[in-house]
Amino acid sequence: MKIALAQINPVVGDVIGNTEKIIGRIEQARAEGASLVVLPELAVAGYPPWDLLLKPRFVQANVEAVRRIAEHCRGVAALIGFVEPNIDPVGRSLRNAAAYCADGRVQAVRYKSLLPTYDVYDERRYFEPGPEVAIVDHGGLPVGVTICEDLWNDEQLVSRRLYRADPISQLAEAGAKLIVNLSASPFTHEKHPYRVRLFGNQARRYGLPLLFTNQVGGNDELVFDGASGAFDARGKLIAQAKAFEEDLLVVDLDAPEANRVEPYPESIVAIHDVLALGIRDYVRKCGFQRVVLGLSGGIDSAVVAALAVAGLGREAVTGVSMPSRFSSEHSKTDAEVLARNLGIDYRVIPIKEMHESVEGHLRPQFAGRPPDTTEENLQARLRGMLLMALSNKFGWLVLTTGNKSELAVGYCTLYGDMCGGLAPLGDVPKMMVYALARHINQRAGREIIPENTIVKPPSAELRPDQTDQDSLPPYEVLDQIVELYINEEKSQDEIIEAGFDADVVRKVIRLIDVSEYKRKQAAPVLKVTSRAFGIGRRMPIAARFRY
Amino acid sequence: MKIALAQINPVVGDVIGNTEKIIGRIEQARAEGASLVVLPELAVAGYPPWDLLLKPRFVQANVEAVRRIAEHCRGVAALIGFVEPNIDPVGRSLRNAAAYCADGRVQAVRYKSLLPTYDVYDERRYFEPGPEVAIVDHGGLPVGVTICEDLWNDEQLVSRRLYRADPISQLAEAGAKLIVNLSASPFTHEKHPYRVRLFGNQARRYGLPLLFTNQVGGNDELVFDGASGAFDARGKLIAQAKAFEEDLLVVDLDAPEANRVEPYPESIVAIHDVLALGIRDYVRKCGFQRVVLGLSGGIDSAVVAALAVAGLGREAVTGVSMPSRFSSEHSKTDAEVLARNLGIDYRVIPIKEMHESVEGHLRPQFAGRPPDTTEENLQARLRGMLLMALSNKFGWLVLTTGNKSELAVGYCTLYGDMCGGLAPLGDVPKMMVYALARHINQRAGREIIPENTIVKPPSAELRPDQTDQDSLPPYEVLDQIVELYINEEKSQDEIIEAGFDADVVRKVIRLIDVSEYKRKQAAPVLKVTSRAFGIGRRMPIAARFRY
Repeated sequence: MKIALAQINPVVGDVIGNTEKIIGRIEQARAEGASLVVLPELAVAGYPPWDLLLKPRFVQANVEAVRRIAEHCRGVAALIGFVEPNIDPVGRSLRNAAAYCADGRVQAVRYKSLLPTYDVYDERRYFEPGPEVAIVDHGGLPVGVTICEDLWNDEQLVSRRLYRADPISQLAEAGAKLIVNLSASPFTHEKHPYRVRLFGNQARRYGLPLLFTNQVGGNDELVFDGASGAFDARGKLIAQAKAFEEDLLVVDLDAPEANRVEPYPESIVAIHDVLALGIRDYVRKCGFQRVVLGLSGGIDSAVVAALAVAGLGREAVTGVSMPSRFSSEHSKTDAEVLARNLGIDYRVIPIKEMHESVEGHLRPQFAGRPPDTTEENLQARLRGMLLMALSNKFGWLVLTTGNKSELAVGYCTLYGDMCGGLAPLGDVPKMMVYALARHINQRAGREIIPENTIVKPPSAELRPDQTDQDSLPPYEVLDQIVELYINEEKSQDEIIEAGFDADVVRKVIRLIDVSEYKRKQAAPVLKVTSRAFGIGRRMPIAARFRY
Repeated sequence: MKIALAQINPVVGDVIGNTEKIIGRIEQARAEGASLVVLPELAVAGYPPWDLLLKPRFVQANVEAVRRIAEHCRGVAALIGFVEPNIDPVGRSLRNAAAYCADGRVQAVRYKSLLPTYDVYDERRYFEPGPEVAIVDHGGLPVGVTICEDLWNDEQLVSRRLYRADPISQLAEAGAKLIVNLSASPFTHEKHPYRVRLFGNQARRYGLPLLFTNQVGGNDELVFDGASGAFDARGKLIAQAKAFEEDLLVVDLDAPEANRVEPYPESIVAIHDVLALGIRDYVRKCGFQRVVLGLSGGIDSAVVAALAVAGLGREAVTGVSMPSRFSSEHSKTDAEVLARNLGIDYRVIPIKEMHESVEGHLRPQFAGRPPDTTEENLQARLRGMLLMALSNKFGWLVLTTGNKSELAVGYCTLYGDMCGGLAPLGDVPKMMVYALARHINQRAGREIIPENTIVKPPSAELRPDQTDQDSLPPYEVLDQIVELYINEEKSQDEIIEAGFDADVVRKVIRLIDVSEYKRKQAAPVLKVTSRAFGIGRRMPIAARFRY
């Protein structure tokens, strides 16, 4: 038996477009001899649809779309993720559902049982968990249909079981001969090997082959990595779709050796590819063709420019150097060399005179107070204003270039270098930015990011001879403290006990805590680690704490 | 029997400070002869603590604080809201709990059963619902302890029952003679009469007296209104604490007529008071003493200035007029008159020359394209930059002055007039801003907001002779469409069918949909309506929909 995993990149909310795409995949799967085609979770809506789910007309459009898709399911069956009104008068008004379509109509609907409410997930905001699970009969084959989280409750592999129910064991008990999972599982660094282990473990434990189709593509903060796959009853990975692009993988369960197993890119390659995809999809799905960013000669803007070129092509990127009186010669050269290496449009707009004009008008207000970060921030804000002016005039989306380490400690100017529609590096710690820079040059087989940009001490260049390390600990140390405090929720005392200098830890944590107001107004961040700034981290601002 | 309702204004996260405050109230209640004192939901943590709950040290601090508070419960008992680790190894790791403390220690702990996951609430992110409910024995009186949402599942009054369980009926069945509720119930317009009806209905239906203590004060977007109260067994309101300030209300159940019933301010008065409180608490709890805002001579900035004075005092407010070459004479006069009427610090920083300097530097980039909103936005961004410079130099928090109608349709400049730490009017529709202005003058018994500011046609004054109605429908119409589309989730077709011009509706909805990216980066908005921009409304950005 052949089953097709239709790994699509839907646009959130675009029920009509997504429906066309799904119908196309169903026809292709039939042409390739599949008897069943599996779509991702909420494929009709695009995941995550967020509060579109509160719009009754949107829900209705979903239901109608599934009926229309079902009409195309002749000679092939399909499992399609969609949202369905909950017929029970008590409880949340929706269910996260999968329609089994065959012979031109919806034959059965199954529901997600385990609804995640951690990190970036809010499924209890919309959905009621499914009632008891039941087998789907696919031409005599009893199939156990699950949706994403339903398979992630394996007490052998998760640190804490969040749910009492365990749909896969119930389905196995009910006689399933095959487990299918409709997924929308976003990328995080090092998650793929874990997912493969977890799914393989489930297949082996119940002695059942297991297939899953994952969504692919970027939707705001989240980038879904695809890499849909199939496991045999011993838990061995026998087929894997491409990572980071659409794919239709036809799995032949009777000829496991004949299946396609696409490689999953390693660590830094995956991060590069996911960021390029995240930029492309955010820009395109927002309706933009081109982006613009400031090029400082530093490593963050260089890496963002290279990622934008990887995602959108060099014709779609404009880099702008905006030197001030504190900009070093090498900054200007490094920016120019980078732009030349990438082959992108490059402009220079000096801010010296504008800065003097603004400072002059403010001086009477400042009543003789000495210069401080106020004057530094003015430069960053003038630059943000210029990029936004280009954005407004030409319809280009501004990419902001700050990294996670800066955003953590607030080493960035709100309404200044934080201006932009997307923060591609907002979840990438500084040391990982360096790794990306080296990878970009290695991948190109030549110098894209100037060597000088990589080796020089990082500096905001907002006052003479400034370097980041005047204000911050070395990034090797800072990144580790950020990881422990943000991603692992360790306390100040625990971090100090882990061997870091107590004063440094206290200072870094204080900076992190007082910078919540900046992150509240930050551009969407592409999530790559287990804990990104954004919807997956919800902190109070007007608060007082030290834990 | 006397029971004290200790309506406190906690600081989120400040376990030490909140604990001190709670102990103080317990001692005061004992002095006033109460046998039991009831604190709000999560009183030790402050509601909502958000992801502080994911910090194990924070949870531990909560538990220790309750133990410490219990030691002070001698001669008086207390019910205290706190967060407790879930001892069950399966499920979310915390419970939203109430400790019954008496005779110097925690005697019993009860748990919230109904966990809201709609609007601004994410309780399933942190908490597991309580196991079955049970009575607390308070010196022989069987008390049914509930926490906030536990009482909000009345099928006679809610449009849809979200929960199968109904703690109050279970408690009544178990023999409770009194129902107590620990609340953290944020203000929304017209909610108080509904709350009184709902609680009264519950009391009457079960024939049990019912008391609730509500939190008071602003925590980021949410302002809790207090107005804790008591109902007799026939559902009559027999006691009510003050709205919008801390209070300790001692309720004598045996002498219902003797109790204090504070008035709850009517409609527009309540909105005024809640915004003043929201500003004060946000500013103070963020550690600021003073605020600064731009005064355009228009009604929005005038109302925000007056609210800031009401919340913080006139010494704490600086207004800045930043006229451009398009500013009318009356704008400058109106701003100055307002500042004089309020008695606040007033500055003028003209932006004409700065604007020319920036435009001059951009002209070569613009390659002969005609002026458009780009040049208009430059003015707004220069003003934002100047306010932020004053903020940086003097440590003043910037208040942004945009209203909900503007924020809905994106009639505001990102990084321009949207600059600021708090948006007091971000959930106040324009027509309500007018009502606030009239109320402010009426309350003062003299002209605070110049009559000309109220009667002149609203204008952004970013080009010659501009008025808002060049781009937008009249605010009477716009506000209704916003209400229907945002608050009531009506579809485009439904709104047109309700009698609005089809082209106007389509245009407004398109503007609302394409402005999500601006709201993503907006300052926190003080919630006053049933649906505010912010954490209670989660929309995708890179999406395509029309529903």
